[in-house]
Amino acid sequence: MNYHLVMKTFFNKIAIVGPGLIGGSMGMAIRRKKLASRVVGVGRREVSLRKAALAGAADTTTTDLRAGVTDADLVVLATPPDTFGKIAAVLAGCMKKNAILTDVASTKEKVVKSVLGSMSGREDIIFIPTHPMAGSEKGGVENASHDLFAGSKCIFTPLQNTPTAALELLKRMWEELGAHILVITPQEHDTLVARVSHVPHIVASALINTVGESDGQAGGKGLLDTTRIASGNPELWTAICENNPEKILSALDDFSDTIAEARELIARKDFKALAAWLHAAKKKRDFILERRTKRGV
Amino acid sequence: MNYHLVMKTFFNKIAIVGPGLIGGSMGMAIRRKKLASRVVGVGRREVSLRKAALAGAADTTTTDLRAGVTDADLVVLATPPDTFGKIAAVLAGCMKKNAILTDVASTKEKVVKSVLGSMSGREDIIFIPTHPMAGSEKGGVENASHDLFAGSKCIFTPLQNTPTAALELLKRMWEELGAHILVITPQEHDTLVARVSHVPHIVASALINTVGESDGQAGGKGLLDTTRIASGNPELWTAICENNPEKILSALDDFSDTIAEARELIARKDFKALAAWLHAAKKKRDFILERRTKRGV
Repeated sequence: MNYHLVMKTFFNKIAIVGPGLIGGSMGMAIRRKKLASRVVGVGRREVSLRKAALAGAADTTTTDLRAGVTDADLVVLATPPDTFGKIAAVLAGCMKKNAILTDVASTKEKVVKSVLGSMSGREDIIFIPTHPMAGSEKGGVENASHDLFAGSKCIFTPLQNTPTAALELLKRMWEELGAHILVITPQEHDTLVARVSHVPHIVASALINTVGESDGQAGGKGLLDTTRIASGNPELWTAICENNPEKILSALDDFSDTIAEARELIARKDFKALAAWLHAAKKKRDFILERRTKRGV
Repeated sequence: MNYHLVMKTFFNKIAIVGPGLIGGSMGMAIRRKKLASRVVGVGRREVSLRKAALAGAADTTTTDLRAGVTDADLVVLATPPDTFGKIAAVLAGCMKKNAILTDVASTKEKVVKSVLGSMSGREDIIFIPTHPMAGSEKGGVENASHDLFAGSKCIFTPLQNTPTAALELLKRMWEELGAHILVITPQEHDTLVARVSHVPHIVASALINTVGESDGQAGGKGLLDTTRIASGNPELWTAICENNPEKILSALDDFSDTIAEARELIARKDFKALAAWLHAAKKKRDFILERRTKRGV
């Protein structure tokens, strides 16, 4: 691939393995922005691939992994992470020299090890792990959207030996999709997302499990929004917990300490301090929302 | 008031004391549905009243509480609950015989006692405490909407001696505003809302206080939604905690027990049980959302 010849079209062929909510949204955005000459959707089920094609997530689709990725300049792994080892082993056998491989998994340390383990002997393939911080409790390409990543963050956890040109190219692609790039290590990533994503999911689920169906019906929009992510795919979230247990436990303990703070203030009727505690939360949340709005959502 | 003469116009004059987010939305909906011949907005600050009039929340406005409520058939208390005792004392001196007084406060036991304490000697005034389970983290009449109550629940906690005709009339008014009525005791109300509203607020605030501004910026829409209510008015929520501390503490403990369940499953790597726990949460939340959608939101 001649990086210096790339103008608006970043890649000749991009293969998206698993064009669901995230992979499908990438395909739609890449095609809309003309960042590749061709996007191929690769999946196991014909019916899902037909949906992906219908949604505009790919120019062509195939159930043949090998055929789909062989001449791709960029391969995006967007299947559930427990499939990565197996798929990466196939990719190692057919991806072209110096092509870029990326993934969109929600955890990084174990995933990176698993992919690298399957790719040994193919050090020419440039693996760049990423995690777009966007999604929905409703999975599948039927909920995909070309603007899913507008104003979002995309976390990059590059390996130490990643060629700068390839890294910059993938960063620019994500920026074209509307994302802001954050570069950290896989370990930093897993610590961060345990706090901003995994624990909020467990907390939302715990709230709704505490409230129950009957009482929950009396709740307002506040309860529904606070627990929206609890409607996400339980298998996906179980796999995430399985891939990041230590950091989730540590973040859960921090959260429980914070809940205990509020409990203590109410118990000793220190409502002045409680007001300050609630003010701090409002200030932080308003700040995050404002920054995000400025980023373009 | 001749209840049997009431057709579409339920009340001759309704006075809304505090036409902010809730009171203002009531005024807009009542006027739109023509449920009163006249809606008067009563407030302390001219600037707020001008906003209320501009939003269509009232036909006329006044800063004179006494003049505003004197000939009203229905007076709605929609100011912060800590003002209720003082305002109710004025109402006791001027509301007309057999008029209905209602409030929209988020807690009921203490509020009911406070209002009744100020109204002693005016047992002819029919006090019907209610709590519309609708709102927004953004207060003020500028965020009011005529359809704020569509598909919501409105909790009634009537006193034992409430005349049936008056109770039915107020219920029908709320139904016209799109609400579904739930009748329980003040104590049951405070137990219920501690679980479906007050604890979710504290949990959302604890989440954002744990995450902080810097890390929070990496979060996706899930984090923003889960913590939306934490952007609510800290003074309002402090007052709510002050009015309902025992039931909030008890509900917080139930929530912490549920968080501990999930923590334990992750710690002992029982991911099959964790999946079941996440499934239960998803099922409950999907059920509540479906019911609410059927109710018309």
